[in-house]
Amino acid sequence: MSPHRPQQSWGSQHTESTNNVHEEEAFELDENSDLHHLRPKKHEIKYKDGNSIDWLHEEALEREREYLKKSQRSIRGLLSIWGDSARVWLVVVATGIGIGVAGAWLDVLVKWLADLREGRCRAVGEFCTDWQPWSEYLNIRSIFLSSLLQSSIYVVLAVLFASSAALLVYIYAPYAFHTGIPEIKAILGGYVFDAFLTPWILLIKALGLALSVASGLSLGKEFRHSEGTIIVSPFFLPHYGVTVAQKRKLLAASAAAGVSVAFGSPLGGVIFCLEELDTFALESDVMWRGFVASAIAAVALQYVDPFGTSKLVLFQVTSGGDTWRAFELVPWLSLGVIGGVLGSLLIKLNVEIALYRRNSALGNYPILEVAAASAITAAIAYLVVFTRVQSSELVANLFQECDLAKGDYHGLCNPTAMWENVFLLLISAGVKLALTAWTFGMMIPAGIFLPTIAIGACIGRAVGMLTQAVQTSFPKAWIFQACPPDTTVRCVSPGFYSVIGASAMLGGVTRMTVILFELTGALSHVLPIMVGVMTGKFVGDAMGTDGIYNVWIAMRHYPWLPPVDYNDKGKTAADAMRPYGTLVKIEEGELTLKDLDNLIKRRNFHGYPVIKGRDLIGFVTRDRLLSFIDTHLSATTASMKCTFSAKRVAHSDGVVDLSRCLENSIINLRKEVPQALVVRMFQKMNLRQILFTHRGQLDGMMTKADVVSLLTAHFPHTGSLST
Amino acid sequence: MSPHRPQQSWGSQHTESTNNVHEEEAFELDENSDLHHLRPKKHEIKYKDGNSIDWLHEEALEREREYLKKSQRSIRGLLSIWGDSARVWLVVVATGIGIGVAGAWLDVLVKWLADLREGRCRAVGEFCTDWQPWSEYLNIRSIFLSSLLQSSIYVVLAVLFASSAALLVYIYAPYAFHTGIPEIKAILGGYVFDAFLTPWILLIKALGLALSVASGLSLGKEFRHSEGTIIVSPFFLPHYGVTVAQKRKLLAASAAAGVSVAFGSPLGGVIFCLEELDTFALESDVMWRGFVASAIAAVALQYVDPFGTSKLVLFQVTSGGDTWRAFELVPWLSLGVIGGVLGSLLIKLNVEIALYRRNSALGNYPILEVAAASAITAAIAYLVVFTRVQSSELVANLFQECDLAKGDYHGLCNPTAMWENVFLLLISAGVKLALTAWTFGMMIPAGIFLPTIAIGACIGRAVGMLTQAVQTSFPKAWIFQACPPDTTVRCVSPGFYSVIGASAMLGGVTRMTVILFELTGALSHVLPIMVGVMTGKFVGDAMGTDGIYNVWIAMRHYPWLPPVDYNDKGKTAADAMRPYGTLVKIEEGELTLKDLDNLIKRRNFHGYPVIKGRDLIGFVTRDRLLSFIDTHLSATTASMKCTFSAKRVAHSDGVVDLSRCLENSIINLRKEVPQALVVRMFQKMNLRQILFTHRGQLDGMMTKADVVSLLTAHFPHTGSLST
Repeated sequence: MSPHRPQQSWGSQHTESTNNVHEEEAFELDENSDLHHLRPKKHEIKYKDGNSIDWLHEEALEREREYLKKSQRSIRGLLSIWGDSARVWLVVVATGIGIGVAGAWLDVLVKWLADLREGRCRAVGEFCTDWQPWSEYLNIRSIFLSSLLQSSIYVVLAVLFASSAALLVYIYAPYAFHTGIPEIKAILGGYVFDAFLTPWILLIKALGLALSVASGLSLGKEFRHSEGTIIVSPFFLPHYGVTVAQKRKLLAASAAAGVSVAFGSPLGGVIFCLEELDTFALESDVMWRGFVASAIAAVALQYVDPFGTSKLVLFQVTSGGDTWRAFELVPWLSLGVIGGVLGSLLIKLNVEIALYRRNSALGNYPILEVAAASAITAAIAYLVVFTRVQSSELVANLFQECDLAKGDYHGLCNPTAMWENVFLLLISAGVKLALTAWTFGMMIPAGIFLPTIAIGACIGRAVGMLTQAVQTSFPKAWIFQACPPDTTVRCVSPGFYSVIGASAMLGGVTRMTVILFELTGALSHVLPIMVGVMTGKFVGDAMGTDGIYNVWIAMRHYPWLPPVDYNDKGKTAADAMRPYGTLVKIEEGELTLKDLDNLIKRRNFHGYPVIKGRDLIGFVTRDRLLSFIDTHLSATTASMKCTFSAKRVAHSDGVVDLSRCLENSIINLRKEVPQALVVRMFQKMNLRQILFTHRGQLDGMMTKADVVSLLTAHFPHTGSLST
Repeated sequence: MSPHRPQQSWGSQHTESTNNVHEEEAFELDENSDLHHLRPKKHEIKYKDGNSIDWLHEEALEREREYLKKSQRSIRGLLSIWGDSARVWLVVVATGIGIGVAGAWLDVLVKWLADLREGRCRAVGEFCTDWQPWSEYLNIRSIFLSSLLQSSIYVVLAVLFASSAALLVYIYAPYAFHTGIPEIKAILGGYVFDAFLTPWILLIKALGLALSVASGLSLGKEFRHSEGTIIVSPFFLPHYGVTVAQKRKLLAASAAAGVSVAFGSPLGGVIFCLEELDTFALESDVMWRGFVASAIAAVALQYVDPFGTSKLVLFQVTSGGDTWRAFELVPWLSLGVIGGVLGSLLIKLNVEIALYRRNSALGNYPILEVAAASAITAAIAYLVVFTRVQSSELVANLFQECDLAKGDYHGLCNPTAMWENVFLLLISAGVKLALTAWTFGMMIPAGIFLPTIAIGACIGRAVGMLTQAVQTSFPKAWIFQACPPDTTVRCVSPGFYSVIGASAMLGGVTRMTVILFELTGALSHVLPIMVGVMTGKFVGDAMGTDGIYNVWIAMRHYPWLPPVDYNDKGKTAADAMRPYGTLVKIEEGELTLKDLDNLIKRRNFHGYPVIKGRDLIGFVTRDRLLSFIDTHLSATTASMKCTFSAKRVAHSDGVVDLSRCLENSIINLRKEVPQALVVRMFQKMNLRQILFTHRGQLDGMMTKADVVSLLTAHFPHTGSLST
C-alpha cells in the first residue's frame, strides 16, 4: 500500500464486503489469532485501528468502575477517586500549556524559514535590526541580476522546503498529511485510529507544516492548532491509563484548546467543539475540560509568543464598521453569495483533483507533485504583490482601513490605482482558489482556513473598493443619503468588507458558523459578519455540497455520523436494514464450543445475534466470545453445546453456559419505525447496532456502517479515497 | 384554588395517582368529553396544559408534512416552502426587534418610577437637568423634617409600588409571579403550559416587574429579558399556525434573544440556550434562529435605549486585572468557596421559606406579604448606602476601581474608612442574602440574577479591599514580590475582585458557567473569572444542592429532565419500571368498540400497550383512539370486537380494524438494560415512554414521569409546591 493512501479502513472493508453483510472490522484473521492467546481483562475490549468504539459497552464499564470505586469506603478508595480526578485535570492543564507553547514556537520557526527565502538577518535584537537580502549578501550590484537571483532563490528554497516536508511525511508519517480535522472528527465520534495519535506524527506534522507554510504553498497553518495540537495529548495518555471513552473526552478538550489558540479566543474553542464535534459536546465535564484547556492554552501562547502576535490576526477588526448604513446590506449579501458559490466551487475542484490524483499516475509521485506545485506556486506568486507576501500578512493588511499616516499596504491605498488594485485582487483570489484546491490533499500537512480567508479577503476588499468608488462618485444619490454629508469623511470601509468577504468564504467552505461570530467582539460588527457567514453557508448548502471536512470524511469513508436531520422521505427501517436472511447468527443450543470458535474466526464481525428458531435471545460481541472461549475451551468442553438462555446449567449437563456473555444494552425496534428515528438514535446515543424484532422474532439489523451509508448516499464519491 | 398556587399540574396528579400507575394527564374526564365531539385532524394531537409533548409523534408528523410539500412539484408547492421559511425568519426578526425595544422601554419605566421615590424632575432634557427632592418641592426647611419626609416617602412609595405589582399579578395573571425560567425550561422540554404563554401575562409581567424593581425589593430585572421576553413571541404565534414542535423552536430562539439583551452579548444568548435549555440546542436551525434573534435584539436595544445604558453593566470590566499575580489565586479561590457556600445557603433558605409560605397561613395573604417585605426592605435598605442605591448602580460602582479623579463611589475609596467599608459591605451582603431568599418566590415577578451579583460583588469587594490592605501593609513580604516595587502603583484591584465575587456567587446559585465567561472579553480577565465560577459551582455541587432553577422545577414537579449523568448504582430498568401487572392494557380481539370507548374514558392515560396473551402487539395513544372512535362508533360497530393485528379485516367480519392507530415509533428494550441507559434515551430522544419486552412478551413500561422521579429522588422537596 503506498503511503499516500493511509486509510486501511472500515470503509473499504465495508465496500468490499457487501456480501458478507455486517462486516465492520478491518483486522484480519491471522492478526486476531494473537488476541486469542491474550487474556484480556474481563469484558474489557481491545480495540484495533479501524474499529468503532462500542459506546454503550464502554459507558456501562465506566459506570461499573465508578460504582466499585465509590463503594470502597476506605481512605484508599476516597484517595483513588480524588487522584483520578486530579490526574484528569493535570492532563488538561498540561495539554493546555503544551499546546500554547508549541503553537508559539511553531510560529517562530515558520517566520524564520519564510524570511530565509528573501535574505538573512545580520543583527538580531527583539526584531531583526539589520536585514540583508541575498543579493546584497552576495554583493551583486546589477539590478537585473539581483532580482533574477532573488527570485531564483525564492523559488528554489520554496521547492526545497516543500519537498523536504513531503519527504518527511512520506517516509516517516504518511498519516500526517492533509489537515487532520476529518480524522479528529471521526476519532471523537468513536472511530479507532491509534496510528494517527502518536507523538511521532505530531513531530512530523509540526516540522512538515512549518516547512510547507514557509514554502509559500497555498495552505494554512491554522491546523497547527486545531489538531497538531490534539496530538499533544497522547504524550500524556500512556501514563494515564484511561479507557477509550475517557481518552476521547480528553481529546475533545485538546481540540478545544487548539482552536482556542488558533483564534485567540478561549470560548471559540468550546464553541468549535459544540458546533463541529457535537457528539460529546453537551456532556458537561467535556465542556469544562475543554474550556480550561482552552483558557490555559491561550494564556500560555500569550506569555510565550516571542513576536507578540498572539492576538491572532484572523479577525482583528481594528477600525471601520462602527456604524453602517442600510445600503451596505446589498454588497454584503453579494459577498455572501459569492462566498457560497466560490466555496462550493473550491470544494468541487478539490474533490475532482483528489480523485484525479488517486486514479491517475499522479498518485505515484507524491513528492514530485509537491515539488512541482511549490515551484509553480512560487513562480506565479512572485509576479503579484498580493500573492507574494505571506497569506497571514496579506489578510492582516486587507483587513486594515487605509490610513496614509500608517503607510500604504501593498499600494492598496493609492486612489489613482483603484481599478488596477481591484483587478489584481480578483486575479489573486482566482489564482489562490485554484492553487488551494490543488494543494489541499497533497502529501504535506496543510490547513484550509488561511487560504480560504485570504481568497475571501481579496474579494471582499475588491467589492468594498468598488462600493466606495460608486459612493464617492455619486455622493448625492438617494441610496447614499445615510452617508455623512462631509465627503472627506469615509462612508464605506473597504477593510471591513474584506472581513465580511473572508467570513462569507469561510462559511461557504467549512459551513461552520457560530465560531466565526465569536471572532469579533463589537456588537456593531457582528450583524454584518453574520449576514456574510449565513448567506455563504446557505448558498453553499443550496448548491448541494457539504462542508469540505465532511466531504473528506465521506471520501475516506470514516464511520462518522454528521449531525444532520436525515429526511427519510417516508421510508422505514425495513428498507435500510440488513434482513434476517443475510445475518450471521448463533443458534442457541445448536453449536458446540468448537463450532462457535470456528464460526467467529471465520465470520469476523463485531457481534452476533443469538436466536432460537427465529426468536431473538440476545446479542453477543465477538470480543466477549473470544475471551470466554479462550478461558473455557478444553478437550472436554470443545464438544459441548453452547447455551445462552438465562437458566443456570451446570457443565456436567453437557452444555456450556454462555449467558453471561450476552449484552444487556441492546436496543430493539420494530422495522416499521421511520428511518429518521433510527438515524437519530444512532446520532444521539452513539450506538453500534440496532436489532429489529417483531413479537420477539428477529427481522433484521442495522449497524453504524449502514447509517453512515444512508447519510452519505447523496454524495457520489463516498469511499472513493478509502484504502 | 388560590391564585398563588398556579401549578395545576402533572406532578401533583402523579403524586396522587401512584396507585393508578402511569397516569400523566391533568385534564379531567368531563373536560375530555368535549374532545370527544371535536373531530381533530387525522393524527394531529390537541395538547392540553399539563400534557407532555409526544416528540416522536410530532417529528414524524412534521417529516410527513415536509415530504408532502416537497413532493408537490407545482409552483405553488415551491412557493409554500419558501413562504414557510420566510415566515419563520420574519417571526424571528420581529421577535428580536420586539424584545430589544421592549427591554429598552422597560428600563425607562423602572428608572422613572425609582426616581419618583426620591423627588421629581423639574426640567427634562436628554437627562434630568433640574432635580428636585420631595422636601424641596414641598418647601420644607428643617433638616430633620426633611429627612423624615424623604425616608417616609421612600418607604411609602416602595410599599405602594410593590403592592400594586402584587395586586396586578394576583388579580390578572397569577402565572406571572416568580422568575419564569423554570417554566420556560419545562416548556422547552416539551411540557405544555399554554396558559403561561399569553400576551396578557407578558403585559402584567412587564408592568409588575417595573413596579417591583422600582420598589427596591431585592430582586432582579434581568428576568425582563430572559423570559418577559420569551413571551413576546406568542404575539406572533397565533398568526403563524405552527405545530407545537415549531413553536418550541421559536420559543428557544426568543429565549436566546432575551438573554442576549440581558447580557448585551448576542453570543451569550446562544450559549445560554446550549447550556441551560439543552434539549434542542444542537439542532442547528434552532441555533441559527437563536443567533439571529439575539443579534437583532441586541442591536434594537442599542438603537432604542434612551439612557445609553445598553452596554449592560453586569460585567463591564473597565480597568484593573490587566495583569495578575500568582498570590491572587488564594483570595480568588476563597471567593469561589464563599460563593459556593453562600449560593447553597441562599438556595436552601429560599426553599425553606417557600415551603413555609406554602404550609402556613402566610400563603393566604400574598399581597400583605409583599407589602410587608417591601416595607421592611425599604426601612432596612435606607440605613446603609450600599443597600439604599439601586442594585444595578451598586454593582456598577463596585466593579469600578477607585480613581479619585472620577469620584468616590459611596465613600468606598476613602482609605481611612477601609474597615468600616468592609464591615458595611459584609453587612449589606448578609442583608441582601436574607431578603433575596425571602423575595424570590413571592407573588411578584422577580429575577435572581441581579441580587446574586450584588451579594457577590459586595463580598468580592470586601475581600479585595482586605487583600489590598494586607499587601500595602507588608509590601516587602515574599508573597507580594510580584507586585511593582513602586508602592504608589496599585497591585491589587478590588474592583476586579468584586467581579470575581459576583461570578462565584452566580456560579453557586445558578450553576451556569459558560455564559459567565462570555461576559468579559479580555483574555486576561477570563482565567480569574473562570477560577471563581468553577470553584463556586463545584463547591455548590459538593454541598448537595442543585441550581436554583432546577430546585424550583423539582418543587413544582414539572416534567423536565435535567441534562445530568444519572448514576444508577448498578440498577437495571427492572427496578424502576412499572411492572406488567400494574399497567392498563388493551387486549387484542377481546374488547368491543364500546368497551374500548369506556376503557379510555375511565382510565385516562396518554397511551396503552396492546397485547395478545402477554405478547406485545404495539402501543396506541389515547388521542388516536379517541379520534378513531369518534369517527367509527355507531350502533353497528359498538358491539364489534377490536383488532389491532396488521391483517386487513373487513367490517363485515364483525371486527373493527384499528391497526392504523398503532404507533410506529415505539421503542422496546429488555428490562436488564441499565437504568442509566434508559435515562439517557429519555434525555436525548425526548421520549414519552419505553416498553420493556422479553422475547416479545411485555414486561413493563417506563414513562417520562418515572424518569423525572428517578432524577429528582435525591431532593427531599420534590413536588412540594405543585398544585
